[in-house]
Amino acid sequence: MRRRSLLDLDDLHGDELRALLDRARSFHEHPPSRDLLRGVCVVNLFFEASTRTFTSFAIAEERVGADVVALPPGSSSLGKGETIADTAITLAAMGVRVIVTRHPESGFPYRLAESFDGHVINAGDGRHAHPTQALLDLLTLQMEFGRIEGLRVALVGDILHSRVARSNILGLRALGADLTLVGPPTLLPAAMVREGVKIERDLDALLPAVDAVMLLRIQHERIVSAVLPSLSDYARGYRLDARRVATMQEHAIVMHPGPYNRGVELTDDVFAYRGWRYAEQVGYGVPIRMAVLDFLVNGSAA
Amino acid sequence: MRRRSLLDLDDLHGDELRALLDRARSFHEHPPSRDLLRGVCVVNLFFEASTRTFTSFAIAEERVGADVVALPPGSSSLGKGETIADTAITLAAMGVRVIVTRHPESGFPYRLAESFDGHVINAGDGRHAHPTQALLDLLTLQMEFGRIEGLRVALVGDILHSRVARSNILGLRALGADLTLVGPPTLLPAAMVREGVKIERDLDALLPAVDAVMLLRIQHERIVSAVLPSLSDYARGYRLDARRVATMQEHAIVMHPGPYNRGVELTDDVFAYRGWRYAEQVGYGVPIRMAVLDFLVNGSAA
Amino acid sequence: MRRRSLLDLDDLHGDELRALLDRARSFHEHPPSRDLLRGVCVVNLFFEASTRTFTSFAIAEERVGADVVALPPGSSSLGKGETIADTAITLAAMGVRVIVTRHPESGFPYRLAESFDGHVINAGDGRHAHPTQALLDLLTLQMEFGRIEGLRVALVGDILHSRVARSNILGLRALGADLTLVGPPTLLPAAMVREGVKIERDLDALLPAVDAVMLLRIQHERIVSAVLPSLSDYARGYRLDARRVATMQEHAIVMHPGPYNRGVELTDDVFAYRGWRYAEQVGYGVPIRMAVLDFLVNGSAA
Repeated sequence: MRRRSLLDLDDLHGDELRALLDRARSFHEHPPSRDLLRGVCVVNLFFEASTRTFTSFAIAEERVGADVVALPPGSSSLGKGETIADTAITLAAMGVRVIVTRHPESGFPYRLAESFDGHVINAGDGRHAHPTQALLDLLTLQMEFGRIEGLRVALVGDILHSRVARSNILGLRALGADLTLVGPPTLLPAAMVREGVKIERDLDALLPAVDAVMLLRIQHERIVSAVLPSLSDYARGYRLDARRVATMQEHAIVMHPGPYNRGVELTDDVFAYRGWRYAEQVGYGVPIRMAVLDFLVNGSAA
Repeated sequence: MRRRSLLDLDDLHGDELRALLDRARSFHEHPPSRDLLRGVCVVNLFFEASTRTFTSFAIAEERVGADVVALPPGSSSLGKGETIADTAITLAAMGVRVIVTRHPESGFPYRLAESFDGHVINAGDGRHAHPTQALLDLLTLQMEFGRIEGLRVALVGDILHSRVARSNILGLRALGADLTLVGPPTLLPAAMVREGVKIERDLDALLPAVDAVMLLRIQHERIVSAVLPSLSDYARGYRLDARRVATMQEHAIVMHPGPYNRGVELTDDVFAYRGWRYAEQVGYGVPIRMAVLDFLVNGSAA
Repeated sequence: MRRRSLLDLDDLHGDELRALLDRARSFHEHPPSRDLLRGVCVVNLFFEASTRTFTSFAIAEERVGADVVALPPGSSSLGKGETIADTAITLAAMGVRVIVTRHPESGFPYRLAESFDGHVINAGDGRHAHPTQALLDLLTLQMEFGRIEGLRVALVGDILHSRVARSNILGLRALGADLTLVGPPTLLPAAMVREGVKIERDLDALLPAVDAVMLLRIQHERIVSAVLPSLSDYARGYRLDARRVATMQEHAIVMHPGPYNRGVELTDDVFAYRGWRYAEQVGYGVPIRMAVLDFLVNGSAA
């Protein structure tokens, strides 16, 4: 009953990841046919408000010709005592072939995929994973540098609470990037180190050497909590600003998954930096999601 | 000004019901043209959260090529002091030809249909009616047995509060099923008996004789209220489980409109029963709704 | 970066207004091609509940073949600390070319348009403006009388709090109507008089002379507040009823943007008046919105 789903980036081995990025690049350069998913029913089952990811998926689905049903937060009846398994069985029975889901609970898409006779795409679950965001980040690096292997990438900020970080770590390691995690101990515990990942507390020491900086969002609820003792402390150590980007290499780029908190993890100066790639990242979100839909529904062959 | 609407199953006489089931069966076997409702504007005006019914209608509407506008709960401005009649007049004036509506208030679709110069489809109103659910239940019986006339059907559980039961009673009687209502007096008052409907308190005595059992959802709010004195009492008398399905005939089937409460009106054993037809019911929901749309908009001729 | 937007009617000069009304009339008479906005992505970003305007835009967008993404109230993540500018940058980056937005805050669409590399259409902002409503009102006059110049039009009721009034004043003056504002001092302060606009306190004195009355909605929150001292006082002076419409000229018409409060700004008798044009107004809403989309995206040439 279990079909291919995209729950996190460890669902794909390195060759598949590379093939997916290639397909997305080709869709970016030449929009695919509107018949690519003709007649395939896709449900967007979102339990958290979302502008960016919801809109990007909706556009991608429309562009490949799918039949799309949107279930925004508050519109579905999960919680009437129906289990996740029963929702999965029900949607499959009415011919739904893909569920794109976002949920505040880590693991929700996994439980859905266990019972769903179709494809589940994780559009963000709790603090756990956000694989399509990581894929568009990888595509941004690939488009910029022509390769990911050996790139020196710094992931900076609230690593601990970030589903974007977790998925990016999987993808960057699978593709052989030289990855360093950067942040204060409260947001980046030493326990997060694993094979192939380094930790650095001193952002200024690292910046002149990296090819790409991936900033992470500091969530508002952290700012006012004990996790982040002082915003000015954080800014002194980790906020990207004009002085810091000036120390980066000519070719280096800065990325952010959005939404960014101006003045917290970066200052407005960064938007003027030649290597600021936020708009490119967002732009790649649509072709990467078309490629994921095509890959899951139509198979991995090109 | 009044056009054909589907507010409950007594809007259709027996021949029309049979024609509608035939049309749905043919749509199930051969998907209809995407031009069937080309250019016809359908609004889904839902005032209650719904996954199953909302998604099923949305898929059906897309498959027949309608122009679909979704107004999920909280998005519409009914309640700004505008009357139902005024909403009906407004939607008709902008060219909307079909309104599919779900509302917590019994009778809401009737009041809408009084003022709407177009077709209203009741997708569930309060405790009153849910005609498209009953139609897909009838289609399930028809597909299973090739006929409905003379079938021995038991409707089991919370008959009193169920809009699904009310519509099914109308449809089953119109098509000549041999119908028995089963449940405790708090959920099935003796006053509900009418011509052509029997009441039975002893489920075990009835089970070996029936062709089909239609279970009803016991709503959570009943479970904790005085209406249902004790869950274990209910289970002892009316919950379907392995022992009970074992007493049913070889060819007999079990149906449920969903969402089901596991452990309340049925145990998980029932899902393994050879005659469990929940997924088939849900699957027939899409062609039956396409058939209803086609019937109302394009007329009753085949 | 700034492209043409429709934020209020002063964005258009008189010739453009007339061309837009002509285009809408032609779309009303002959529906335009479904390829008019083929492949153009439109996002409906609504922060207030809306049946009428939301549905009208959704139908118009579908009819011209756009790719439509609906973000109903509560579904978007604006407010997660993201600025309006960042939302604008993000939507543009993913290829969105038109944002239709409604917001309780006056000025919101202006701030969005400042940062959005695409077209913004104001679907109502606070008490400020509602240009597409005013356009459909102008189209109603044009269709009825064949001209707007020189028409004697009375705008009656809560001028002070009405975004519909504000936009209509701009449009009616630009097209040379002979406009009089009518209402009590609490809802129509003398300070609102400007060049080309007259104020009248005595509705009965004016009615026999006008070609068209545009009623405005009295919002419920005004009725219970100090702004409107007594409903019966208001009714005595300004509510349209059978006696008042009987004093109007044979050819005169009555309009209302909806939703109307029966018994407040009008009695039900008005619905039977030969000149009541509410349904016509709503009907013109779809072609006027198709024309606005076409005008912004495809340019002002016919």
